[in-house]
Amino acid sequence: MRRIVLIGLSGTGKSSVGARLAALLGFDFVDSDTEVARRFALPIAEIFARYGEPVFRAAEREVLRSAGERCDVVIATGGGAVVDPANWGALRPGSFLVHLTGSPEQIVWRLRTQVAQQPDERRPLLEQGDPVAALARLWSERARLYQQADVAVDTDGRSIEDLAVLIAELAAEHAAAGLIPATSIDVPTGRSDIYAAPGMLAHLGELARRRWPDARRAWIISDDHVLPRWGGATAVALQRADFAVREHAVPAGESSKSLVRLEELLDWLLAGKLDRRDIVVALGGGVVGDLAGFAAAIALRGVGLVQVPTSLLAMVDSGVGGKTAINHRLGKNLIGAFYQPELVLADTATLETLPPRERRAGWAEIVKHAMIERTATGAVEAALLFLLERSDERQLAEPDFIAGIVRRNVLIKAAVVRQDEREDGLRRILNYGHTLGHAMEAAGYRYLHGEAVALGMRAAARISLSLGRTEPEIVARQNALLDRLGLPERFEGNLADVLERMTHDKKAVAGTLTWVLLAREAGQVELSRGVPLGLVEEVAAALGAAEDRTSPMGKAML
Amino acid sequence: MRRIVLIGLSGTGKSSVGARLAALLGFDFVDSDTEVARRFALPIAEIFARYGEPVFRAAEREVLRSAGERCDVVIATGGGAVVDPANWGALRPGSFLVHLTGSPEQIVWRLRTQVAQQPDERRPLLEQGDPVAALARLWSERARLYQQADVAVDTDGRSIEDLAVLIAELAAEHAAAGLIPATSIDVPTGRSDIYAAPGMLAHLGELARRRWPDARRAWIISDDHVLPRWGGATAVALQRADFAVREHAVPAGESSKSLVRLEELLDWLLAGKLDRRDIVVALGGGVVGDLAGFAAAIALRGVGLVQVPTSLLAMVDSGVGGKTAINHRLGKNLIGAFYQPELVLADTATLETLPPRERRAGWAEIVKHAMIERTATGAVEAALLFLLERSDERQLAEPDFIAGIVRRNVLIKAAVVRQDEREDGLRRILNYGHTLGHAMEAAGYRYLHGEAVALGMRAAARISLSLGRTEPEIVARQNALLDRLGLPERFEGNLADVLERMTHDKKAVAGTLTWVLLAREAGQVELSRGVPLGLVEEVAAALGAAEDRTSPMGKAML
Repeated sequence: MRRIVLIGLSGTGKSSVGARLAALLGFDFVDSDTEVARRFALPIAEIFARYGEPVFRAAEREVLRSAGERCDVVIATGGGAVVDPANWGALRPGSFLVHLTGSPEQIVWRLRTQVAQQPDERRPLLEQGDPVAALARLWSERARLYQQADVAVDTDGRSIEDLAVLIAELAAEHAAAGLIPATSIDVPTGRSDIYAAPGMLAHLGELARRRWPDARRAWIISDDHVLPRWGGATAVALQRADFAVREHAVPAGESSKSLVRLEELLDWLLAGKLDRRDIVVALGGGVVGDLAGFAAAIALRGVGLVQVPTSLLAMVDSGVGGKTAINHRLGKNLIGAFYQPELVLADTATLETLPPRERRAGWAEIVKHAMIERTATGAVEAALLFLLERSDERQLAEPDFIAGIVRRNVLIKAAVVRQDEREDGLRRILNYGHTLGHAMEAAGYRYLHGEAVALGMRAAARISLSLGRTEPEIVARQNALLDRLGLPERFEGNLADVLERMTHDKKAVAGTLTWVLLAREAGQVELSRGVPLGLVEEVAAALGAAEDRTSPMGKAML
Repeated sequence: MRRIVLIGLSGTGKSSVGARLAALLGFDFVDSDTEVARRFALPIAEIFARYGEPVFRAAEREVLRSAGERCDVVIATGGGAVVDPANWGALRPGSFLVHLTGSPEQIVWRLRTQVAQQPDERRPLLEQGDPVAALARLWSERARLYQQADVAVDTDGRSIEDLAVLIAELAAEHAAAGLIPATSIDVPTGRSDIYAAPGMLAHLGELARRRWPDARRAWIISDDHVLPRWGGATAVALQRADFAVREHAVPAGESSKSLVRLEELLDWLLAGKLDRRDIVVALGGGVVGDLAGFAAAIALRGVGLVQVPTSLLAMVDSGVGGKTAINHRLGKNLIGAFYQPELVLADTATLETLPPRERRAGWAEIVKHAMIERTATGAVEAALLFLLERSDERQLAEPDFIAGIVRRNVLIKAAVVRQDEREDGLRRILNYGHTLGHAMEAAGYRYLHGEAVALGMRAAARISLSLGRTEPEIVARQNALLDRLGLPERFEGNLADVLERMTHDKKAVAGTLTWVLLAREAGQVELSRGVPLGLVEEVAAALGAAEDRTSPMGKAML
């Protein structure tokens, strides 16, 4: 947890409790109304009167945006700040969100006391005919927003000191349980909050209920490997939060990402009288997430979606970012939708039952994120790459350590998706290793997605080196990591077939393939459309034959 | 056309040309930078320095929003206003958008001259090391936005007077040809510009090219009735704007809204190597629009979409608002997506070939819009209802008159969709007449959608009357209009079947049907979830038997 944010109606004590809480924790304190007033050198009421509410809201948004980038800070928001989705995007990730409540009578009494003490302070609420009725109206407009906070704290009959202590305790509890989102993806089509910690599954019900207060049923879609192992715990968590639960399993494996399975799911949902307010819970790896996510996107033109990824690959990649799809005989993921899961819940304890080969394959996307981190986030260091290089075998198997890795990965992916949901620009860097990797996977040689991506990264790195775009030691570091994680070095299959498929790849734009290539510094990549096909063939052939994947110089440095 | 909006880089003369143009036309003039500076009582540069760009942009947005509501006005925007999608939403509909261009050298020369004449006026561009390079950078960031204007006018070597006269002439030409959108729907997922006039089809290519400058191919999806008649003109219009054209027809009729046809379309698109930058053109009635729109939404996770509705129903309803869907054996439109067509082009000349029965059916949705107009738009009069009641047979067959009706209808529909794209609230009023109508259509008694909706409106009106929600004369006016337009009065089929289907309707929320009922004033409706099933059965039965559909009092008033 990096900060505590107080929301609630005016008069619930956000400013006074926030100041005391900050002092208690040794945090800084930002009071957004005070900060906006300071910038304009005018009282809030005067800013409203002179420039209008939109200008006030823009200034408030700006104050909250910069406050949301700070650590160790308590932020008291204005009562109306919750209405603007941009403020949720700025404040939700990494924050403990506290909703201060109070009875209307108590609130009006507090506001009157303040005005009595500071006659210059205008409180527009008190200038209405019936302040209690005005509060009730505001409440009915905003209740569903306030209720998305991590906790609600009733202020009636509690002192400022008591409230500060209580909130500090609640914050510590929530942070320990992983109940604060690692990050959020906030795009025009919706917001996606992403949680990662061992044992998260037990909290699925409460986190879902907070987002869908009116939902009656949760439709769990899983596969026949995952459902028997985790379906029970998932159903119990949902039932505890008053969801009626339905379950359906498709056969495990990539072949379930088909139109036939999609139709089967739609029939199941519609025959069961799926309601528009119901939610779909995708419980499983990438296949289940893609298939169930697409079904949720198009059934009744879209119902609520929770992703509960149970594979490493899905936790760090496919479960995050809103891509859903099925395959077509001409290629992978050719039919689908961009559809954000409002809630993503990665319980790293579920990884324990993952077969070793699938688990290994999941690390490939993690290495990919390590290789693109600086371009994705603008970070000054390739932190994930260093972390992976320094970790040992024991750590790589620990749910707590993996949860930390997962959180770091989703930060990288979210940074990209937030800027480019629909893959028109920056999002393409997430395809590092995928140009050839997708084709190898689709060619039917039974490579897992991660395995194919590992091969694709080896090829892309070698191409980058041949074109003089990167340095031998960067390639060597990548390949050493892939080796240590047990990811394949050689492609076994028909390369001519793979190259033909590559040109069908949906990422082909106007006939030219876009490659993601390594750049001069570790963690940096760039896009290139000028990779000669001859070079691709040569590198692919070397990958088929080869043992010597890196340059002699790179080898020497390992 | 209600206003002329000037966009372009700073220094292209927007303020001086705009002022002269306004004088020439007798319009008011709004210069957004001047207006923002006036509100803050500070120069623009000082607002940036003191409050930051977001506050300036919020104030500019507010100025442009209110200017966009005015008629007979020329608006000069700030150079960066085009970057904010909200400004397009405020200014695009009903405006003639003029992009003023100029060579960088000319622009810099103009800015230097202005500063020489008014030394207080700071021009940030001139304070950069290389103003020409700074201009080139701004241009590359904004070119694709500026190019969405209706025309580009080169200012080099032209006087202010010449430019004003030229723009006035161009505006008159464009308005006469219907080349200014009737309205735009601006929602988080995208913007949809809607044009309606006889002969619009000839302009399809240029309007599409302006929105998709990089597209190579246009994939026309139509049906086997419409394609032979209008496919040629559509293809020619697209080819003139350098689109390579592909065509595919499905069988005409509701049964094409099936998973089988959808799969056929996806196979055709993907086997032909659909590119992410290509566009799909849906040419036809509601069936084609729903099916092709859904295919465009999910092929490669979404490609550009143009709706070219050729039926009255599609022009006023299904082609506008972004709903796409196919049917399921359990009900209509149960599988689909919300996906906005960036361009909707209604050529009322294409209606000439519509069979009389389909044409009649299309009027049902127009009557529906007339019955909900005031609730939808907040208008003080039921203007569409009056217009329809006053029109004669000859007018109802004229492409020009119909184009006016279509524009008024899309204004009503757009007003609703803009506020509620995903039908969580207000959008439900568009279902007036559909609760029973959908079920009658789905029950397989070969009613066209509009015919079933007409029956549904008669039923909903009678329910409203029975519950004391509306007045007899409002019901009578609706039914008289439906009678005159030749829409059915009696339901011929099995009512038990219809009632059973109704409960399956996807609009059922948490088990209770939401009805849209007529209210006290013509043009007003309200939502109700408390309609007793017994009353529905009674009214439906009367519709099956009945001749006497309105109260005696209502009858008397006809």
